[in-house]
Amino acid sequence: MHEERIARVRVAMVDHDVDVLLLSVGADLPWLIGYEAMPLERLTMLVLPLEGPATLVVPRLEAPRVVDRGDTFAVRPWDETEDPVEIVAALAGKPDAAAVGNRTWSQFLVELTRRLPATKFHNASEIVGPLRAIKEPGEVAALRTAARAVDRIAAALQQGEIPLVGRTEADVAADLARRILAEGHHRVNFTIVAAGENAASPHHDAGSREIGRDEVVLCDFGGTMLFDGVGYCSDITRCVYTGEPPPQFRDLYQVLFDAQQSAVAAAEIGRPCEDVDAIARRVITEGGYGDYFIHRTGHGIGIEEHEDPYIVAGNCTALVPGHAFSIEPGIYVPGRWGARLEDIVVATDGGPDALNTVDHSLAVVDA
Amino acid sequence: MHEERIARVRVAMVDHDVDVLLLSVGADLPWLIGYEAMPLERLTMLVLPLEGPATLVVPRLEAPRVVDRGDTFAVRPWDETEDPVEIVAALAGKPDAAAVGNRTWSQFLVELTRRLPATKFHNASEIVGPLRAIKEPGEVAALRTAARAVDRIAAALQQGEIPLVGRTEADVAADLARRILAEGHHRVNFTIVAAGENAASPHHDAGSREIGRDEVVLCDFGGTMLFDGVGYCSDITRCVYTGEPPPQFRDLYQVLFDAQQSAVAAAEIGRPCEDVDAIARRVITEGGYGDYFIHRTGHGIGIEEHEDPYIVAGNCTALVPGHAFSIEPGIYVPGRWGARLEDIVVATDGGPDALNTVDHSLAVVDA
Repeated sequence: MHEERIARVRVAMVDHDVDVLLLSVGADLPWLIGYEAMPLERLTMLVLPLEGPATLVVPRLEAPRVVDRGDTFAVRPWDETEDPVEIVAALAGKPDAAAVGNRTWSQFLVELTRRLPATKFHNASEIVGPLRAIKEPGEVAALRTAARAVDRIAAALQQGEIPLVGRTEADVAADLARRILAEGHHRVNFTIVAAGENAASPHHDAGSREIGRDEVVLCDFGGTMLFDGVGYCSDITRCVYTGEPPPQFRDLYQVLFDAQQSAVAAAEIGRPCEDVDAIARRVITEGGYGDYFIHRTGHGIGIEEHEDPYIVAGNCTALVPGHAFSIEPGIYVPGRWGARLEDIVVATDGGPDALNTVDHSLAVVDA
Repeated sequence: MHEERIARVRVAMVDHDVDVLLLSVGADLPWLIGYEAMPLERLTMLVLPLEGPATLVVPRLEAPRVVDRGDTFAVRPWDETEDPVEIVAALAGKPDAAAVGNRTWSQFLVELTRRLPATKFHNASEIVGPLRAIKEPGEVAALRTAARAVDRIAAALQQGEIPLVGRTEADVAADLARRILAEGHHRVNFTIVAAGENAASPHHDAGSREIGRDEVVLCDFGGTMLFDGVGYCSDITRCVYTGEPPPQFRDLYQVLFDAQQSAVAAAEIGRPCEDVDAIARRVITEGGYGDYFIHRTGHGIGIEEHEDPYIVAGNCTALVPGHAFSIEPGIYVPGRWGARLEDIVVATDGGPDALNTVDHSLAVVDA
C-alpha cells in the first residue's frame, strides 16, 4: 500500500517539477509511510527524492517508534547534539524545487531556506492533497467506524442522557471528551458546546456559562481513531433545545435542515465542490437567513480534521468517488442564537453516502 | 500585562533588527495578547510592527472568540473568499526582516515568501523565546497548580489505585487521560505508558501490549490547564514495578534517582543549562549506564510542553529566576527495560523549586 502511494506521489512530483518532497508533522507522512511525526521541537522529516531511496530523519529517542517497513524508507536517527536540518539538506541534495509538508513548523523551513538558498519551496499539498483527498475503501471504512462512534454520543445527547441544564458548557464538553475516548478514539480533537447566544459563534470555546432551560445547545465534536497506527477523524454537529423551541427557532432550524439535506443530496460525482456550497447557501438565502451563514459549507476529512476537498465558493474541483467531506451549513444570529447541522459524506458512484445517520431533527431534551 | 509584554518584545525586535513580528499558532500569541490561534487551515496571524498598532488577522467565524483587549490590538476579520496572506502582507508593509512564529504552518510561510520576496525571515523564538522562558509569578503559580494535579495522579498510580496487571498499556493510558481531565486540565497532551522492554523506548506509544507481573511500568503524562484562557502545561514521569524489582533494576533506579536529584539540586541561579545536563549525565555514567542515557536532561515548560530553556549540552544559557524546566534523566536498556524520573523545577533566588513533590522512589505495586 505505502509503496503504491509513494509511486503515485512521484508521478505527481514530476507533474509539478518538484525534485524532493519533505514531510514532517501532519497527515501526509502517516498516509505515505504509516508513521506520524511527533509535534515537537525535535525534527522528524522524510526526505523523498524523485528517484532513489527515501530517508526518515528522526530523533534517536523516537527511532524505536518507527516500524520497519522493509524497503519503503531508510531511517536516519540523529543525536541530541546533531543538527537535523543539516542532515535533511544533505539528503535533499541541491534541489531546484522542494515541496514541504503544509504543517511543518516554520522554524524548520526558515532554517532549510538558509541551507538551500537556491531552492524554490512549494507546499506539499499541491502534490499530496489531491491524492489523499480520494479515499481508498479501507479509509472509508475507518471514517465510517469513527462516524458511528460519534453518532452514538449524539444519540445520547438527543435522548437526554447527558445532563445539560444547570451545568456549564465546559462541564458538558468534558463529558463529550470522555465519551469520545470511551467510544474508542485515540484523541479528542475538539468539543464545541455553545449555549444560547454563544451558539452564534461558530467556533465558540466551551466556557463557564451555565446552560439554562429553553435554549439551544450546539454541540460539535470529534476525535481521531487509530487504524493500524494511523488516525482517522470523526466530526459531527447536532443541536438540542432544552425545552420547547419558539416558532422562530423552529423556522430557522427547518431552513438549516433543508439546506443541509439538499447539499448532501447534491454531492454527486462530477459536481463541482463550489456548487454544493452554493446549493446550501441558496436554500438558506431563500429562507431569509443568507447574511447569517458566514462560513463555507464543508471541508474534506480523513487523517486531518480539515483537508481537501473544501466545499467552498471558488473550488471548482469536481467530486469523484472517494471524496470524503463534511456538509455543515450554519445560521448564526449574533447576540441571540445559532444552529449548525453536520454530517460526513462520501461521494460514490451510487450517490452520496452519509456516514452519520443519527437523527437530524432538532431534539427537545429535558436534561 | 499584555501591553508590558508587547513593549518588551519591541525592544527585542530592535535588538534583532526585525521590523515586524508575525505570530500564528503556538504559544507566543497567547502569551503576548491572551488569544490562541486555532490550529486550522484558516490563517490567524498577529501582525506586530515595531511602531504603530498591532492587528490580529482572524477568520470571520472565529472573530467572536477574540476578547476585546482595548487598545492592545485591532481585529481584522477575513471572509471565506478573501486571501488572508494578502491581508497580512499588506499590513506588514515591505519589511526588510520579519520574524515568524516557530510553529506557524509552513504553508503560510511559503505563501508569505512569495508575497514578500525581498524580506528576510527569522524565527520568532529568537525574540520571544528568552522573554517567555522567564516566568512571571502568576505563571509559576499556574505551573504549580498543574503540577499538583498530575502529582495526585502519580500518587494514585504509586498507591495501586490504577489497575495495571492484565490490562493493556493503552487501557492504562486512557485511564491517565481521564484523570488528567478530571483533575482540571483542559486538554491531554500525552500519556506514555511503557511496560517492560517498551520502557526502553523513551517516546513509546502506549499500545496493545498487556502489562504483566514483575515488570516496570513507565508513565509519562501531562496536559494543559487553562488560566484566564491561557493554557499552562504539566509533565511528570514516574515508574512503578508490578512486584518486587530484581536487584539489577533496583541498582539502575538508584543511579537514576541520584542523577535526577543531583541535577535538581544543581539548578541554581547562574549555572549554565548545559552544566545541569552534565551533572545528571556524570552520575549516570559513573553508575555504569552512560550509553543508555540517550536524550537531553530536560526542556523548558510553560504555555508549550517544550520551550526554552533546554537542559542540553551546548546550551550555555545561565539560569535566572523564573526559568522553569523539566529535569528528566532516563536509562534505557534496549530489549530489556528502562526508567525515567521527571519533575518540573523553577530556578529561584532561594534555590531550585521542584513543583512536583510526589514520591520519587520506585513504587512497588500489586495492581
